[in-house]
Amino acid sequence: MHERIPYLSMALQKLINDPLKVADELLEGLVEAYNGECKSVGRRSIVKTDIPDGKVALLVGGGAGHEPIYHGLVGRNLADGAACGDIFAAPPPNIVFEATEAVDKGKGVLYLYGNYAGDVLNFDIGAELADDEDIEIRTVLIWDDICSAPPTEKEKRRGIAGLVPVVKLVGAASQTAASLDELEASAKKAVLQTRSVGVSMSPGSIPATGKPTFELEEGKIGLGMGIHGEPGVAEIPMTTADELTSMMLDLMFKDFEEDEEVAALAEGDEVVLFVNSLGATTMMELLIVLRKAKQYFTEKGIRIYDVMLGPLVTCQEMSGVSISLTRMDDELKGYWDMPCQSNCFSKMEGHYGG
Amino acid sequence: MHERIPYLSMALQKLINDPLKVADELLEGLVEAYNGECKSVGRRSIVKTDIPDGKVALLVGGGAGHEPIYHGLVGRNLADGAACGDIFAAPPPNIVFEATEAVDKGKGVLYLYGNYAGDVLNFDIGAELADDEDIEIRTVLIWDDICSAPPTEKEKRRGIAGLVPVVKLVGAASQTAASLDELEASAKKAVLQTRSVGVSMSPGSIPATGKPTFELEEGKIGLGMGIHGEPGVAEIPMTTADELTSMMLDLMFKDFEEDEEVAALAEGDEVVLFVNSLGATTMMELLIVLRKAKQYFTEKGIRIYDVMLGPLVTCQEMSGVSISLTRMDDELKGYWDMPCQSNCFSKMEGHYGG
Repeated sequence: MHERIPYLSMALQKLINDPLKVADELLEGLVEAYNGECKSVGRRSIVKTDIPDGKVALLVGGGAGHEPIYHGLVGRNLADGAACGDIFAAPPPNIVFEATEAVDKGKGVLYLYGNYAGDVLNFDIGAELADDEDIEIRTVLIWDDICSAPPTEKEKRRGIAGLVPVVKLVGAASQTAASLDELEASAKKAVLQTRSVGVSMSPGSIPATGKPTFELEEGKIGLGMGIHGEPGVAEIPMTTADELTSMMLDLMFKDFEEDEEVAALAEGDEVVLFVNSLGATTMMELLIVLRKAKQYFTEKGIRIYDVMLGPLVTCQEMSGVSISLTRMDDELKGYWDMPCQSNCFSKMEGHYGG
Repeated sequence: MHERIPYLSMALQKLINDPLKVADELLEGLVEAYNGECKSVGRRSIVKTDIPDGKVALLVGGGAGHEPIYHGLVGRNLADGAACGDIFAAPPPNIVFEATEAVDKGKGVLYLYGNYAGDVLNFDIGAELADDEDIEIRTVLIWDDICSAPPTEKEKRRGIAGLVPVVKLVGAASQTAASLDELEASAKKAVLQTRSVGVSMSPGSIPATGKPTFELEEGKIGLGMGIHGEPGVAEIPMTTADELTSMMLDLMFKDFEEDEEVAALAEGDEVVLFVNSLGATTMMELLIVLRKAKQYFTEKGIRIYDVMLGPLVTCQEMSGVSISLTRMDDELKGYWDMPCQSNCFSKMEGHYGG
């Protein structure tokens, strides 16, 4: 292994206006980015302008500051709307309710979001408010972060980058789902087959204060660290991309093996592979990680059905990567192959590797 | 204006293996990302595996380290191949030639790349090598950076983020172009109507050494600074996103006005707007800049035909943004509306704002 290079210390400056208004202003910008295809609703939600009557609706949401998620996942063949919180804060119940009312077209609304206590509390109250208006709600939580709790305690796991392939699949499913029951079942399957492992090398900064989102000793990697700096499984010395990728994928395979709800990953399985940057980690690094991941999967006889790459689930200029995979079956492949478009993730019909 | 917040100084660590092999390893990763749709050719090129016989070919290229460009622009309805250099270095002539031979399908090859002295030198020698093999070559340089020279000296202007919409348009045009002449004409039009202004707030780091790519006093913005830290028009004190966006767009409008080769931007014009991050600048910030840009255009009566957003033309974890715009006409709109897919930019058919 080469000696660790001491890289530059970067003095950051944020290109913002009022530090206390970033969540509002970024949402205004997001609505403009959709250029008429989405609109702002209520206090801080974004919804599509053309949701067909009778469509089973899909609502996502979460705190701001992690762009392009969560509100960037509203789009063509994706979510119908998003309830947005302030920076790193869950959307309040009234915002969840306003978004719910705006996306409901008479067939009910599926809430699909990352498993964080504040989000669960507020979306649940939002669901009660919706129930008072006779809007039917189901909730499927995304809990893909395998380092945040053992497989026997999935209800404690956090939702991280795996939420992007999950929302992509469920957004596609929602175009044809006949009922809320049907969409809920597809969402549960997508969540069950999606797992992620994340690592961090340095924090992002809080827009309103300039303070780091967490502390990590220089030269250390937070293995399994959450996107807000939540503790992971270990702090390990900085290592090579290849070693770290193998370590992350070992954890992933072990998790599928130990989880009684799913089969172990086995030869012949097909997966969508997603290598995500937490912010400042470059596409160059993601490609180097992907290179090793592909070698690892090839050795195990696992087939890559398609690949996603990019800074899609971030925490400001935090550096780090996560690897997510979703095991595909024929139903999920059909959803995957549909085209989609949004501020977060866009693709043409089909998939690479056909 | 609020007081400038002193943001964290970020100690970076790169997730790589051998610092001297990053260009090779990232290209291997990129080939894997295309999962069979592209292959590695010669010493350091990537080309599509399914280029139809008789297609007028489109070749892009440039130095590595700016991912997802340039090699990430190979893809569906985009470029047929890319010649890749080492980190921040032009591809050598033999690499350009190897890529040329691989993409040529009998109708010749259009070279389309950013205007940098080293790239021009090497692509020109590559073209001579191709000429020896009776492969017809045309070259269209991308010189969208209006801060790098006045409109009377376009041959001195650098190519920056505007290359992404240009390659998107020309890649679409290349699917149906009957001849190299026809494709060259479309490319010249796309370049002529595309302009960019960039700013930087802090440098990226050189992967092999850890050293910063340039120096910039803390609290200063390099207005018009190039993606490698080339000097721009001024160093100005850090300001708000709104003020800076207006300043950048004023320069853009002035440039169209002063350029005798194009009409001034006028009420009723339609443009594709692209807000790019140089690396560490977050999507949150891009959206805040976009919000102001949209207000500015609306006041001038300019219609946004579609929007692009993201860290697509980067220099490692450099912070800064660029704003690019391409004025559309019916021919260019037809190309824009085609779907495309690549590691750099993907979209469905059509456009937002229809």
